[in-house]
Amino acid sequence: MPSAVRLGVIGAGSAVFSVGVVKDICLRESLAGSHVTLMDVNVERLEPMHAFARRYASELGADVTFHMTTEREEALREADFVINTAMYGGRDFVEELRAWTEEHGYYRGFRANDILNIRLMVSVARDMERLCPDAWLIQAGNPVFEGCTAMTRETGIKVCGICHGHFGYRELAEALGLDPDKVTAQAVGFNHCIWLTHFEYEGRDALPLIDEWIAEKSEEYWSDYHPHYWENQMARAAVEIYKLVGLYPIGDTTRKGGWWFHTDLETKKKWYGEELGGFDSEIGWGVYLRELDEEVARIHAALSDTSGRLTDIFRPEPTGEQHFPLIDALVNDSRRELQVNVPNRGAIEGIPDDVVVELPAMCSARGIQPYHVGRLPQLLMASVLWPRLLEAEQLIGASVRPDVRMLMAMVLEDHRTESYEQAVRFCREVLSRPGFEEVAEEMRRNGPLPELQC
Amino acid sequence: MPSAVRLGVIGAGSAVFSVGVVKDICLRESLAGSHVTLMDVNVERLEPMHAFARRYASELGADVTFHMTTEREEALREADFVINTAMYGGRDFVEELRAWTEEHGYYRGFRANDILNIRLMVSVARDMERLCPDAWLIQAGNPVFEGCTAMTRETGIKVCGICHGHFGYRELAEALGLDPDKVTAQAVGFNHCIWLTHFEYEGRDALPLIDEWIAEKSEEYWSDYHPHYWENQMARAAVEIYKLVGLYPIGDTTRKGGWWFHTDLETKKKWYGEELGGFDSEIGWGVYLRELDEEVARIHAALSDTSGRLTDIFRPEPTGEQHFPLIDALVNDSRRELQVNVPNRGAIEGIPDDVVVELPAMCSARGIQPYHVGRLPQLLMASVLWPRLLEAEQLIGASVRPDVRMLMAMVLEDHRTESYEQAVRFCREVLSRPGFEEVAEEMRRNGPLPELQC
Repeated sequence: MPSAVRLGVIGAGSAVFSVGVVKDICLRESLAGSHVTLMDVNVERLEPMHAFARRYASELGADVTFHMTTEREEALREADFVINTAMYGGRDFVEELRAWTEEHGYYRGFRANDILNIRLMVSVARDMERLCPDAWLIQAGNPVFEGCTAMTRETGIKVCGICHGHFGYRELAEALGLDPDKVTAQAVGFNHCIWLTHFEYEGRDALPLIDEWIAEKSEEYWSDYHPHYWENQMARAAVEIYKLVGLYPIGDTTRKGGWWFHTDLETKKKWYGEELGGFDSEIGWGVYLRELDEEVARIHAALSDTSGRLTDIFRPEPTGEQHFPLIDALVNDSRRELQVNVPNRGAIEGIPDDVVVELPAMCSARGIQPYHVGRLPQLLMASVLWPRLLEAEQLIGASVRPDVRMLMAMVLEDHRTESYEQAVRFCREVLSRPGFEEVAEEMRRNGPLPELQC
Repeated sequence: MPSAVRLGVIGAGSAVFSVGVVKDICLRESLAGSHVTLMDVNVERLEPMHAFARRYASELGADVTFHMTTEREEALREADFVINTAMYGGRDFVEELRAWTEEHGYYRGFRANDILNIRLMVSVARDMERLCPDAWLIQAGNPVFEGCTAMTRETGIKVCGICHGHFGYRELAEALGLDPDKVTAQAVGFNHCIWLTHFEYEGRDALPLIDEWIAEKSEEYWSDYHPHYWENQMARAAVEIYKLVGLYPIGDTTRKGGWWFHTDLETKKKWYGEELGGFDSEIGWGVYLRELDEEVARIHAALSDTSGRLTDIFRPEPTGEQHFPLIDALVNDSRRELQVNVPNRGAIEGIPDDVVVELPAMCSARGIQPYHVGRLPQLLMASVLWPRLLEAEQLIGASVRPDVRMLMAMVLEDHRTESYEQAVRFCREVLSRPGFEEVAEEMRRNGPLPELQC
């Protein structure tokens, strides 16, 4: 007996993400009868996705209805689940801001846009408190770590961040010559900052195989290393981070690492691969943006060919993403272990209860029940998790009930900042950028902008 | 009825400190009959202090006996109290290491010597566990924050760090035109990182007077600003830090501030005063070292003049330091509020229980009972206290059961480090310096030194 749900998708104009949502819900018979409201502020990006969804469901004969709206409230009212994949201002805004911050000395950008993303997330969760207070919010858009933590603190909404980065353990298994389907792994920490605590192959500890691979095979591997932009699981940077902190970084964790991997393109190439310099270099990111554009063009082309079948081009196979397995587990009690981002509440020692951590959890009609992790090695805490948490606290403090001094702390903490004067000037100018009007105004209301001496 | 105590002083060759100890115990009649063992590894520095102590006590007719030894065990055996003011290697070692780290890109030095100081402190506390397990350890030598935290974690010894920096609130009162004797103040945090939460003048909130002074009088004050090297309570840096974090920094807190105050001498002069550039510039520190030498010379001159009286030159007045008020409070139940450094145990929210915090406490026969502080503003936590705690955790991790990767984390976190290669090279070379043989050996035993790729 399927359970129909009412789902609101915020930011449904994100073409690649929405194609995945449409496929996954249409293919999940246990959710038959469900109703999906696709919402985006950009109607030009939204309309094709709505058309795609209706036609795709119809081709499959799936019992799912789709509605579209540019009004957030309409997508939230009476929802059982909300998936939020929205990004403040969209990609153009992010790239413009990145270019501008690069001019101010921040190579590959300063994450000021995340202030706006976190505020957007909290504003969605606040709306949910009015319109669907019992619904689950599944957070897909970044920054998952800071956004979920802020929403947990600011509202009573049940929040779960979902990301696919933890599947990186499968890439690791493959590189070691192991069948990924015979491997189990536990990676915990914060979103995009997770660490391999356990790794078993056919029931036996496979962690020593990583050391063996590094000692015996890594140099040969890197001598012919041509990763896609999204592949960094076996980059030199990943191994170096592992040597520095004692646990292997999984998924997007390697992308960040430390400031020292990112000082310039040459350094990025050394650590992430000669061709692209990793996902986040000007080259790798350029490839990502181009492929994204190509995929959007492919969706539009398929839509405009009314004689063809969408399902011939976008094959009806589940994406492997966890959003609908989670929804199914919660409403149909189909008990399964998923990798979630939920409030810590004692799962990882030394992390406050109200900080959202990423870890495996049993998901079922009982809700999301994270596995207790306990104490992680002090080296990992002191060299990675606490520093990352500190960055999160400063970013949240600059975003929610925002304080300009938290923004200053963030900027001063940044290794690329070279002087106090630069930091003061940069903070002032960020706050006068388009998009920051509201946050700047709130900062002024929450206390005087200090007249910093320069 | 006085209570005689057995006191061991470790590092008693520190002339200025020991003169203070001798004065304070000789003048405190409630401790009459006490016995003091002065211990130092440097007999040439120790002997004159022993001679000074005996002659000073005799001139005063004080009922205190002094003994000297170069054996630490002798000073600890059956002690009721131990005061540790030792500094690993002494001043010459520190200055040599500073000069060497400056050559490696760390202006005014990298605090690698604190690794050795912390190890020395823990080793004293471990000896106390064998020789005087019930004694109080009063820690005077730096780093008080990390050292006391490490000793608390590693041993069962009762540890209390004592420092005079919190008296900076009196300088603040004077600058504001208030009688310091009519002011009460609470400054809390970590040693050398304490923040004014309360400030009352004749029972009324005097915190607003700070803002008034800044708005109306600070520029005039700084237009004719000629501080001694130890005076920084009213420096531009102090006011700027206050603007950045919301609470006024007290005492030595201002000396650190943030990396941006210390990039070069010119910057230091701007923030700490044109003449000296503050306590920690090459100028200010030079004055400090010279005055220290002059004071030692004065002690030696007084000693060699056997016809004169020491008490004519070193007047028999209490120093105002808290060591003997604390001892007296504990053994004679003379209840008094003192500023102490003791394990947090819930006093400051958001700081782990086993971290040593600085705060006021009621001291009496019941022991040291810190006042509960509660929640401090999030801005202070996220911009100052947690970052400072993180530095402490890395330093402790590089010192006690030392891990070279903790040292790497410390070096990489340092804003003066410009590349990964520099960090790797610097760590390796620090560990091959004289004095670091034992810690390097332990690091190797505690795990392989990672073969960092460079």
